[in-house]
Amino acid sequence: MCWFGRPDRKTAFKRVLTERPRMYDRIKGFRDFYPPEMAARRETIDTVESVARGYGFREIETPALESSRMYADKSGEEILEELYAFEDRGGRDIALTPELTPTVARHRDILGGLLTTLDGEVDTREAIRAVDKREKITPDEYATLLTDAGLSPGQVERVDDLLGTTAEDLDDLVAFAGTDRVESAVENLRAVLDAAAELGVREYCTLSLRTARGLDYYTGVVFECFDSTGEVSRSVFGGGRYDDLIEGFGGQPTPAVGVAPGYAPLSLLCQRAGVWPAEELTTDYYVLQVGDTRETAARIADDLRGRGHVVESDVSGRSFGAQLDYADSINAETVVIVGERDLADGEVTVKQMETGDQLQVPVESFPGEHRHPTLADFA
Amino acid sequence: MCWFGRPDRKTAFKRVLTERPRMYDRIKGFRDFYPPEMAARRETIDTVESVARGYGFREIETPALESSRMYADKSGEEILEELYAFEDRGGRDIALTPELTPTVARHRDILGGLLTTLDGEVDTREAIRAVDKREKITPDEYATLLTDAGLSPGQVERVDDLLGTTAEDLDDLVAFAGTDRVESAVENLRAVLDAAAELGVREYCTLSLRTARGLDYYTGVVFECFDSTGEVSRSVFGGGRYDDLIEGFGGQPTPAVGVAPGYAPLSLLCQRAGVWPAEELTTDYYVLQVGDTRETAARIADDLRGRGHVVESDVSGRSFGAQLDYADSINAETVVIVGERDLADGEVTVKQMETGDQLQVPVESFPGEHRHPTLADFA
Repeated sequence: MCWFGRPDRKTAFKRVLTERPRMYDRIKGFRDFYPPEMAARRETIDTVESVARGYGFREIETPALESSRMYADKSGEEILEELYAFEDRGGRDIALTPELTPTVARHRDILGGLLTTLDGEVDTREAIRAVDKREKITPDEYATLLTDAGLSPGQVERVDDLLGTTAEDLDDLVAFAGTDRVESAVENLRAVLDAAAELGVREYCTLSLRTARGLDYYTGVVFECFDSTGEVSRSVFGGGRYDDLIEGFGGQPTPAVGVAPGYAPLSLLCQRAGVWPAEELTTDYYVLQVGDTRETAARIADDLRGRGHVVESDVSGRSFGAQLDYADSINAETVVIVGERDLADGEVTVKQMETGDQLQVPVESFPGEHRHPTLADFA
Repeated sequence: MCWFGRPDRKTAFKRVLTERPRMYDRIKGFRDFYPPEMAARRETIDTVESVARGYGFREIETPALESSRMYADKSGEEILEELYAFEDRGGRDIALTPELTPTVARHRDILGGLLTTLDGEVDTREAIRAVDKREKITPDEYATLLTDAGLSPGQVERVDDLLGTTAEDLDDLVAFAGTDRVESAVENLRAVLDAAAELGVREYCTLSLRTARGLDYYTGVVFECFDSTGEVSRSVFGGGRYDDLIEGFGGQPTPAVGVAPGYAPLSLLCQRAGVWPAEELTTDYYVLQVGDTRETAARIADDLRGRGHVVESDVSGRSFGAQLDYADSINAETVVIVGERDLADGEVTVKQMETGDQLQVPVESFPGEHRHPTLADFA
């Protein structure tokens, strides 16, 4: 058995290890996926990607490392504290490309628009950062941050109150702000919620104006999908609108929506729902060699592979018993035994692993016309 | 249109950019793949992975960053010069996981075994490093490095001569070394070459004892696939045997073979052979809305997606003409026009984009029983 990594992750091992014992500390946030778990993960990723493709999402691949200057210029120096950033040996400031995960449906532009309507010198950016931190700090600390951003105590209370607005009360928000910016932002948000209704998913959406994120990419509605029971705390997927990002890279002004799945929380939810794929290897055929039969075995294996199956065969001269044990360990569905004596009689043995039943079959009729030949086809 | 990244690469944009103009320098060795090129790349990756799966290769995913200490311990401090290594802000020594690409079929153990048979104090590791550098330095520099490693001038000449050994002359090598280690290593190499013959690929293999690599993972035969015309210099794929690596991580002794494809050279070869997939977006259906028809359009789009197709639809109230232009730009095969007036008559229009032909079809018979309905099914 052999492994392969994805193109950008090149290590490849040979045996099933459910866990790799490590002599070196794993970098925080990274982990290994071994074949049984990876098989389930791959099935899930393929499903998510195939649904995304169905909706016209197109795949891109971007660098895993970028200049950290880019992030600092977009989001302020403070963002560097939230990134995995470092100076490389060429003296360049580099950051690992972060996940772009915002939090809960909200309209960032409303928050910004609201803040600009306040009397006095309000630092909008600092105030948004304060709102972003709300859940992680005490009410007093929250009030202090907003005061530092230029809000009066009365404004602090009023703003926090308004940020509790639900979809039904959006009119209040427009009335309070009394600006075209907030009105048009609310109009856009309503259009998004209407579209959600027409697409039949409105009942799954709740509105929040209370959250904001460190990454300043987003220019409009952002969304995030959470476990409604609260059991799984990290978001299942998230994304949003960022109209300025591509222009920020030096491109044309390009309205954009992006979304990224969170496979770790998705796997927890699927497990809870009992729909997580089995974490096990699957193998369609093991072609077992006894004696000097490699040429025939290779021909049969290649023929089966050509029909789209996963086929393993011996490459190191193992005994009959060792090969059968191995075939069992990789969950081979069918074992084709190619033995020297059988071959002399023009036959191979087809063995169904689940039942242990087996049958001798003329070598010229295997695999024959069957796309996925099993013991039943020859019984 | 929307993009998605792979799970570990999260950026997602919205419009086709064949090239992203950059205000920030790209990190050397990294690049962007935009949808048209990525579509061709994905088809190639899927093909390679599906063939690998057919042979029983199992997928794993490993961290993109590891402790650089691990590499230094395995391969010596010198390896750090060849890695993208840095100290992170936590003071940890980190390295980007390197590609594990060795060079040309050779038997590393033979080289090591050969060197240990020499009289005098030979530093085997340094001598292997010298052989590794042979192609990049002058013959004089090469001789000096080998002399520094403890070889006499006569030994330098003899070793270099022996490293030119071809598969036919392996006996000479065994005779010269006269040790069990070299004999059994040569025996193993012969078994590999015999297996290649029985599997019908011997004619594509040449033997080289002259190359060695910085990464000291490999313990046995290593192999690499090159363009035989020499036009594409980087290897198409490479791998080898590394029996100690997993033990080095703290695991059980585990004989292992790994292989990694090089998609950049593979793409050059495919292009030359005229089999590189078209670098273009493909879209099965665009469902065009005229007037307030989103609900019907969404139902048709969902139905088509359920049949496995790539389907796009308008989400921003664009005009008929703008939608048709867009459908053309994403190479939509069929456009389904859902118009308010048509719908009142219980009809939709099916338009084949290549010919421009179109036909009105009862809405209840589209998509009907057809798995992949096109204009021809209704003509």
